Amino acid sequence: MNITEVIVTPIAIPDVPLANTKGVHPSVFLRAVIEVKTDTGLVGLGEAYGAVRTLSGLQTVAPKLEGLDPYDLRDLRRRIVEALPNSGGVNAPTALADHKVVDVVYSAFEIACLDIRGKEVGRPLYEILGGAARKTIPFGGYLFYKFAKQDLTFGPDIMGEVMTPDALVDQAKLFVGEYGFKSLKLKGGVLEPDLEVETILKLREAFPNHGLRIDPMGAWTVPTAARVVKQLDGVLEYLEDPCRGMDAMAKLSAQIDMPLATNLVVVEFEEIIEAVKKDAVQIILSDHHYWRGATGAIHLGEICRAANLGVSMHSNSHLGISLAAMCHVAAATPNLTYDCDTHYPWSSKEIIKGGRPTFKNGTLQVPEGPGLGVELDHEAVAELHELYNKAMVADRDDTNEMLKYIPDYVRKVPRW
Amino acid sequence: MNITEVIVTPIAIPDVPLANTKGVHPSVFLRAVIEVKTDTGLVGLGEAYGAVRTLSGLQTVAPKLEGLDPYDLRDLRRRIVEALPNSGGVNAPTALADHKVVDVVYSAFEIACLDIRGKEVGRPLYEILGGAARKTIPFGGYLFYKFAKQDLTFGPDIMGEVMTPDALVDQAKLFVGEYGFKSLKLKGGVLEPDLEVETILKLREAFPNHGLRIDPMGAWTVPTAARVVKQLDGVLEYLEDPCRGMDAMAKLSAQIDMPLATNLVVVEFEEIIEAVKKDAVQIILSDHHYWRGATGAIHLGEICRAANLGVSMHSNSHLGISLAAMCHVAAATPNLTYDCDTHYPWSSKEIIKGGRPTFKNGTLQVPEGPGLGVELDHEAVAELHELYNKAMVADRDDTNEMLKYIPDYVRKVPRW
Repeated sequence: MNITEVIVTPIAIPDVPLANTKGVHPSVFLRAVIEVKTDTGLVGLGEAYGAVRTLSGLQTVAPKLEGLDPYDLRDLRRRIVEALPNSGGVNAPTALADHKVVDVVYSAFEIACLDIRGKEVGRPLYEILGGAARKTIPFGGYLFYKFAKQDLTFGPDIMGEVMTPDALVDQAKLFVGEYGFKSLKLKGGVLEPDLEVETILKLREAFPNHGLRIDPMGAWTVPTAARVVKQLDGVLEYLEDPCRGMDAMAKLSAQIDMPLATNLVVVEFEEIIEAVKKDAVQIILSDHHYWRGATGAIHLGEICRAANLGVSMHSNSHLGISLAAMCHVAAATPNLTYDCDTHYPWSSKEIIKGGRPTFKNGTLQVPEGPGLGVELDHEAVAELHELYNKAMVADRDDTNEMLKYIPDYVRKVPRW
Repeated sequence: MNITEVIVTPIAIPDVPLANTKGVHPSVFLRAVIEVKTDTGLVGLGEAYGAVRTLSGLQTVAPKLEGLDPYDLRDLRRRIVEALPNSGGVNAPTALADHKVVDVVYSAFEIACLDIRGKEVGRPLYEILGGAARKTIPFGGYLFYKFAKQDLTFGPDIMGEVMTPDALVDQAKLFVGEYGFKSLKLKGGVLEPDLEVETILKLREAFPNHGLRIDPMGAWTVPTAARVVKQLDGVLEYLEDPCRGMDAMAKLSAQIDMPLATNLVVVEFEEIIEAVKKDAVQIILSDHHYWRGATGAIHLGEICRAANLGVSMHSNSHLGISLAAMCHVAAATPNLTYDCDTHYPWSSKEIIKGGRPTFKNGTLQVPEGPGLGVELDHEAVAELHELYNKAMVADRDDTNEMLKYIPDYVRKVPRW
């Protein structure tokens, strides 16, 4: 079985101004839809970041995959490394570190190759990965401070402005009401730490039994983080990336009992070992989009098990192909012991047939169809590709977008 | 696809009195041949240890696998854990630690399940594991001091007594002549350390460009090992398990530059992390027979890559099913950077169709047939099963066997 054609389609999806340490989400988020066709008639799907550096990498690699056997992931990696010397040579400013482009491009195609393998034997992806530790995948509500959307060209706003603890609790109530989430994560690093602490305490009041987390994306100094930890002692299930860099996390970790999680200071397999040696974090966020695909994410789980680290799951803004892949990876990761993050409720579009899956009690059932278990809705893709062309946005730039809302905004990490 | 029947056949293979720290090989070595049949007509093969504790575990688990989907390795594990409370409750004295029985039994059936998966899609096992990093698998010559065999009931001797440095070099010349090995490993801990150093130096003289190793299986104290390291500075590619226990290895490691390898102090995933923290070893020996099968061995490789540890491959006395599995694991482990160990040349029997594969320049080609790429020779199995019944040996006891050659032998680790 050989690959005959690879189609990479950039799409734009209406987004709302969700705030974070870097700034605020632009009016659209970008994804790349991947179709990998084989000479046996099977088509593997994938969904990746759509910003310029990834997209360029995907497009550069796509024609080089002709003739690849989807089973040969080492050949896939070789072809990508060869096609992307200097990580693709894309010079656009972007959050994605140079050396991660290869991993991200590999991850996107790896999922498509595994999808093909699943389809070939008529089995769901989680079985290709060794079997399911669970089939009901729990997700948490991903809460954001947000602005009222100014530019409605590409889509409507949701919820208006959410910039106070009380408004954030209302947001949580909406999400919990609609999706039934049993845990809640607040994207922090946006308001003064005391206000974010107040937000968490009010969430605790409103949801006495929900798991609660906050992720300030490195916005806090070690002393600030230590103070927050004191204020939220016994309230959080974990604290995600409070400080910037491995050493700051290690310094904080040495002072506190609360578990620290990360998707920022540990993004390479080698960094897991460094983190263990420094006892810098206790939980690592998995994500098949950059941990070398689903097989890489499974390896991550095994390494964390060996190192006695917890595993949770990271999310970027995404649609249903990624959601399905996240479910399969979550199903096949025995030691994934926390509800997965997902941005999914923040958009209303879908590119898979059958439309948006329905959450029940905050959970989804892992798809049982062959491979990823999803089929592409080509009309929906075409519509969002048209939006991509209209939007004329090639990269994600939250900081620049923030200037529309706060003209004198200066990005600063740590800020407090 | 479901498993309908599992057949476990103990076999005995004539062996010769190879010496080690525990004593000497008995006149037969024991293996278990595994056939896993499915309702689709596919049969998966496996080869495991045949000593009582493993055999009993395999036999206890076998009927519990009826109805198992060979893709569901988590269900396989669940069934084994359930079937073997207290690790099977086998009380026979054996080298196999209680908690490893589950891993060893799992490993044996995992290989058979992967064999079935490969056969289902008509692909070699290494492709199921993600593709080959190499298809030519390099093995090293495994050299032993040995006695002249006394009891020839079950098979002839090979080479007579080999108890001096010069005789050992002659043994090496025979093996290198017949198999073309490019590296040589000496099973040490048998003679006085100075004699073993002399042996290695004479091997170096005879084979100026061969990789050389010695494995005294924990027979040396830290000072003795440090002295040997000085004497063999620049001569060995690594020193395997010179001292007993993680802390002794760490103490030695801190004093020397020579890389230390192990298949004794790191046999659990958790121990890799402990070894890294203590910098106790620099190379870990992989072995699909106890590292949770082929997928476990691949995880081991990934963890070692993350931890910047080297990977080599361990061997027990074995036949062709194990040899094929070793080749597939070696093919699919990118960072396996040393020639694999194998006891294979020490026996002359085979249980796979086509007979014994031929080494060329110390290498084998990874089998390209579906799954493991080997088929069972049922007549050969029957013959060796008959020998198992005749031999009336249920366990491996090298120390007791040693008393036949050295009546006042007392096992002692460390000895020097």
